[in-house]
Amino acid sequence: MATTLPNWLKQRAFLTPDREAIRFEKESYTFGQLYEAAKKYAHYFASIGLQKGDFAAVLLKNKPTTIFIIHAFQQLGVPTVLLNHRLTAQELNFQLKDSHAKLLVCDDEFDSLSLQLPNDCQKVLLHQIDLTSTSSFRSEYDLDEICTIMYTSGTTGNPKGVKQSYGNHWWSAMGSSLNLGLYEQDIWLCAVPLFHISGYSILMRSVIYGMTVHLFEHFNEQKINELLVKGEGTIISVVSTMLQRLLHDQTEPYHSRFRCMLLGGGPAPKPLLEQCRDKGIPVFQTYGMTETASQIVTLPPEYSLEKLGSAGKPLFPVQIMIMEGEAILSPHKAGEIIVKGPNVTSGYLHREDANRESFKDGWFHTGDIGYLDEEGFLFVLDRRSDLIISGGENVYPAEIEATLLSHPQVEEAGVIGVKDEKWGEVPVAFLVAKQRAEKEELSHFCRERLAKFKTPKEFIYVEELPRNASKKLLRRELRAIFLKGERNEH
Amino acid sequence: MATTLPNWLKQRAFLTPDREAIRFEKESYTFGQLYEAAKKYAHYFASIGLQKGDFAAVLLKNKPTTIFIIHAFQQLGVPTVLLNHRLTAQELNFQLKDSHAKLLVCDDEFDSLSLQLPNDCQKVLLHQIDLTSTSSFRSEYDLDEICTIMYTSGTTGNPKGVKQSYGNHWWSAMGSSLNLGLYEQDIWLCAVPLFHISGYSILMRSVIYGMTVHLFEHFNEQKINELLVKGEGTIISVVSTMLQRLLHDQTEPYHSRFRCMLLGGGPAPKPLLEQCRDKGIPVFQTYGMTETASQIVTLPPEYSLEKLGSAGKPLFPVQIMIMEGEAILSPHKAGEIIVKGPNVTSGYLHREDANRESFKDGWFHTGDIGYLDEEGFLFVLDRRSDLIISGGENVYPAEIEATLLSHPQVEEAGVIGVKDEKWGEVPVAFLVAKQRAEKEELSHFCRERLAKFKTPKEFIYVEELPRNASKKLLRRELRAIFLKGERNEH
Repeated sequence: MATTLPNWLKQRAFLTPDREAIRFEKESYTFGQLYEAAKKYAHYFASIGLQKGDFAAVLLKNKPTTIFIIHAFQQLGVPTVLLNHRLTAQELNFQLKDSHAKLLVCDDEFDSLSLQLPNDCQKVLLHQIDLTSTSSFRSEYDLDEICTIMYTSGTTGNPKGVKQSYGNHWWSAMGSSLNLGLYEQDIWLCAVPLFHISGYSILMRSVIYGMTVHLFEHFNEQKINELLVKGEGTIISVVSTMLQRLLHDQTEPYHSRFRCMLLGGGPAPKPLLEQCRDKGIPVFQTYGMTETASQIVTLPPEYSLEKLGSAGKPLFPVQIMIMEGEAILSPHKAGEIIVKGPNVTSGYLHREDANRESFKDGWFHTGDIGYLDEEGFLFVLDRRSDLIISGGENVYPAEIEATLLSHPQVEEAGVIGVKDEKWGEVPVAFLVAKQRAEKEELSHFCRERLAKFKTPKEFIYVEELPRNASKKLLRRELRAIFLKGERNEH
Repeated sequence: MATTLPNWLKQRAFLTPDREAIRFEKESYTFGQLYEAAKKYAHYFASIGLQKGDFAAVLLKNKPTTIFIIHAFQQLGVPTVLLNHRLTAQELNFQLKDSHAKLLVCDDEFDSLSLQLPNDCQKVLLHQIDLTSTSSFRSEYDLDEICTIMYTSGTTGNPKGVKQSYGNHWWSAMGSSLNLGLYEQDIWLCAVPLFHISGYSILMRSVIYGMTVHLFEHFNEQKINELLVKGEGTIISVVSTMLQRLLHDQTEPYHSRFRCMLLGGGPAPKPLLEQCRDKGIPVFQTYGMTETASQIVTLPPEYSLEKLGSAGKPLFPVQIMIMEGEAILSPHKAGEIIVKGPNVTSGYLHREDANRESFKDGWFHTGDIGYLDEEGFLFVLDRRSDLIISGGENVYPAEIEATLLSHPQVEEAGVIGVKDEKWGEVPVAFLVAKQRAEKEELSHFCRERLAKFKTPKEFIYVEELPRNASKKLLRRELRAIFLKGERNEH
């Protein structure tokens, strides 16, 4: 039987109407005001024909209006497709079409993008929205209902839309609070994009917990440090590059109320963790993904050096195993990380084949490689085998390779991530050419079709790509070639 | 689809094996030790034939062994029937038979009770249990599965066994933490019986939150005050009589870590609340019942005087309405309190008729009378119309009346609760006699058939009982008669 809960925002506005929900620059909104705003937007969207069961996409930057619209869609029972505004028009067109979105809500500045809307999809720019009236909508949420769609690329093929239900978000919020606790004074700083699960999940926690979220359009280390020193933020979600920038800028110790630096996006380098320990900064490393509605494994600060490189233990509602084929592996044996829990997606939108492959007996096969130690701490070795994490964005080599292969002069392509001081990692392409193209030409070609962070920073021509007996590309060997080249250069 | 979670105790022992789970007198157990103990007991119970789907009853006082056995049954997938050891043999016999219990585990001291076990029910005394081996059992709990049975009496008929699922306990723990918060240093003092939902729910929270429970066999105000002054308890569950005894005994202010006096069992008198305010004691008044797996409505301290007499607003996952017949009533109109939420029982064991009456469209009709004010605060006027709460125990007039009517010399009987300094309320009986029996004889007659706290403290003979046109007993008028009598006496 599906569990129903009261409409979260309505319930929160009823229970604690005057508590602060959102801070953004000089603005502040209570939960009562947030609910009123969401109802006005919902009334408008209903008036232009949006109805329960339709999907609606948003291409919006981090700001309060984005939050109002996200909640407005929830009032209507309309799943939100969260578009990454760093993608190209071509990438966005794919997601709009694939999700069957009936509506696209855009920041005015994105109007210039040459989007090809599906025939039955209307576009609304923020300035066109008319908020003269208000209505109340549903009184309950069904935990099995789809709340959001976020696209993620796998190792092969097109990006897939991850179906995240209300229940996935609810259980994620519960798992997080059982691990991190829940304090009356909590304020969660959100300087990560709302179109990523790292940002969106903070919005859900805010309404469920009755907690203030302090939202930022961009990450700015000076502003964040100022708040952490004053104790006007108790938790913040970051990736390594953000943490590095915070430490570099920091001149005063953080306030004792600051209790959690939640660090996602891959294992952090030891010197960074040592610096945090010396400064008394409580770093919680975490492993999670769009399919698990954010964190699924977290390492508390007391283990951050002892268990260096580990992502920690599962959150309370979650189980983890390491498998190879049909076999469950024993500690210290590396294999595929598989996970189970009520925060895990029920599958990809319109992708029955991928679902059959990734979901078996209630377990989700992540495609990531790792092992458990004898105490059950997870060590992630490779994300989706070859995932590149660049400035907190997931970059899949296969997607870039497919783009490069569509260039008429490219015969074969292999992409790897290489270390980068600013972004953590950046993509580098190895090419076998039919006829060598200029690197500027290749860069321009990619930039037209891929987001900037996916465009390779280097193009290296080789005679052949390293492959195994079954012709599978050996990206590890590309890494070795790259490192050798680097050593020869310097 | 039913939600499955990892076996709570196993997961907790895996995540935080060395954290303290239980304190009791000079004993202390970690979650790792608790899990090991539960597995040993589970192995023993399995070895004597207990298996998944069987029901097992416990007649045990508050002590660590009771907790081990409760968790052992959960390892086996055996619902626990929690027997109140203050009941008479006759009352216990009913519950054993009604629940189809296959096993009764008893404190040795209760061996002398003349229990009539059902034919296929075996009895085990604690000293007979043999803990030489251990086994691991299930890795998951299904939230729809029955975890516990607790008996509760309605206004009519026999007591009914409330089916409490793992999900009911889980959602109750979530609702409580979303309201009260979840602090790393929390220690919940449990001086209420584990066979009541008030006590049992603390055990569930302990394992789910990873929180220490400090257990007491009996409530002792000196011991509790000592801990609260030292800050060795942050939350405690009490009823009014316990709170009164604590205040009476208190000489030093409580530690700042003490953050919640959770006060159940009916509205508290104003002078008591004023005293708490003056002493800075954070009282959270609460309304809940066996059917809602503990708290469902809670009033935070900042409202305790402003909203005097209110039980507060619902917990986050819960909805409340006031109904009369088919009509939903507007604010300040009194009617039946109906509730909905994932912590609410799916129904009574083997009582299809009662279930049809009490559960409609997912809403549970509590039988309690109350109203909501314009802000949504609940005011409870009458619990189950005429429920008497004596020292935290629910006493149903109808049950006592039925017993009195079985006496050959009693023609009619009406029972009400009257104020009592020590117990809050005590039952008093009004009788129309065929032939007047001695009061000692009536008291003895009741004492053989009813728990001591249910035995009327006074028996008052009257010519006739006040009844309405349809001959329904008017207990309110009995109260008026009693008060008039009291005034005449003094």
